[in-house]
Amino acid sequence: MARWQPNASERLVLAAVELFEERGYERTTVIEIAERAGLTKSTFFRHFQDKREVLFGGATLTALLAKGIADAPVAATPLEAVAHGLYATGKAAFPPARREFTARRRAVIEANSELREREALKGLGLTGSMTDALEQRGVPELIACVAAELGGLAMKIAYERWSETTDGDDFGELVREAFTEVRTATGSC
Amino acid sequence: MARWQPNASERLVLAAVELFEERGYERTTVIEIAERAGLTKSTFFRHFQDKREVLFGGATLTALLAKGIADAPVAATPLEAVAHGLYATGKAAFPPARREFTARRRAVIEANSELREREALKGLGLTGSMTDALEQRGVPELIACVAAELGGLAMKIAYERWSETTDGDDFGELVREAFTEVRTATGSC
Repeated sequence: MARWQPNASERLVLAAVELFEERGYERTTVIEIAERAGLTKSTFFRHFQDKREVLFGGATLTALLAKGIADAPVAATPLEAVAHGLYATGKAAFPPARREFTARRRAVIEANSELREREALKGLGLTGSMTDALEQRGVPELIACVAAELGGLAMKIAYERWSETTDGDDFGELVREAFTEVRTATGSC
Repeated sequence: MARWQPNASERLVLAAVELFEERGYERTTVIEIAERAGLTKSTFFRHFQDKREVLFGGATLTALLAKGIADAPVAATPLEAVAHGLYATGKAAFPPARREFTARRRAVIEANSELREREALKGLGLTGSMTDALEQRGVPELIACVAAELGGLAMKIAYERWSETTDGDDFGELVREAFTEVRTATGSC
């Protein structure tokens, strides 16, 4: 049985971003990432299915979003439930201390088309899980889809602003703002 | 100078879908695709940057959408302009004779995660080019984004229905229907 490694996943992510910054995604191997983190290749593959996935250990994000939507007040409209989910997720997943790292991670992804592809698919996954969570609340499928798409857009806007900002570290505030803007824009379409 | 090959691109796409169906995406090489099409590997790479791209020669789709949005009546709202673009694109890119092939292509993509990733990124590209085309019409950025997301959703719904349907080959009709449904759903969010 493998020994449990404290924070192995977090250490691998940090090591990967460092190496991708230093020598590029293509020229970095899984073994090098594991070594930089002081771990083994097999520990890497217990946490991530491949080299790309190290930047997208996003099961947490998906679970947080689904829970946040489920926990919204019963009377909430579909969009309000999504806003509730995004706000709860932002608070938990994007604390101020994480902002600088997030900006670095984002730059690494932007620089590589394989990583951008994986990110695009992850984005569809997030939208899909928001749709599912809304349907669980009894929202009809298509309305759930639309609310999830609009929520995804608000999340993206807030995330971009957050990783670029130098003041105002509060992701929750940014997501609230972006959501209001998206809602207003929808009315002007 | 390379000799011009009539319909080389179309032949490569057909050969690729056949081979992916027969032996899977992973176990098919670019050389095999080129051979099946009666062409050379270098002809392949003049048309497509890599093996995945053979299923996504989507520059045409992007250009058609942008043109369709630009050609919408001046008085059209952002959503009406997107609907105009989708309708024009559907008419040109998805004629009834293409339906069966489209369903096969879709099944091949669904079966492989690398292909699903490429498709996800292409989807973001399409949404981006709809957003740009709307901004060219003077639509403010965020409103353009929202209209493009909603249009992308209508397109996806219409495309799925079209590739699954056994009667009603008219993509234009399906895209019109899906668009109306998405618009109604947006009002109920």
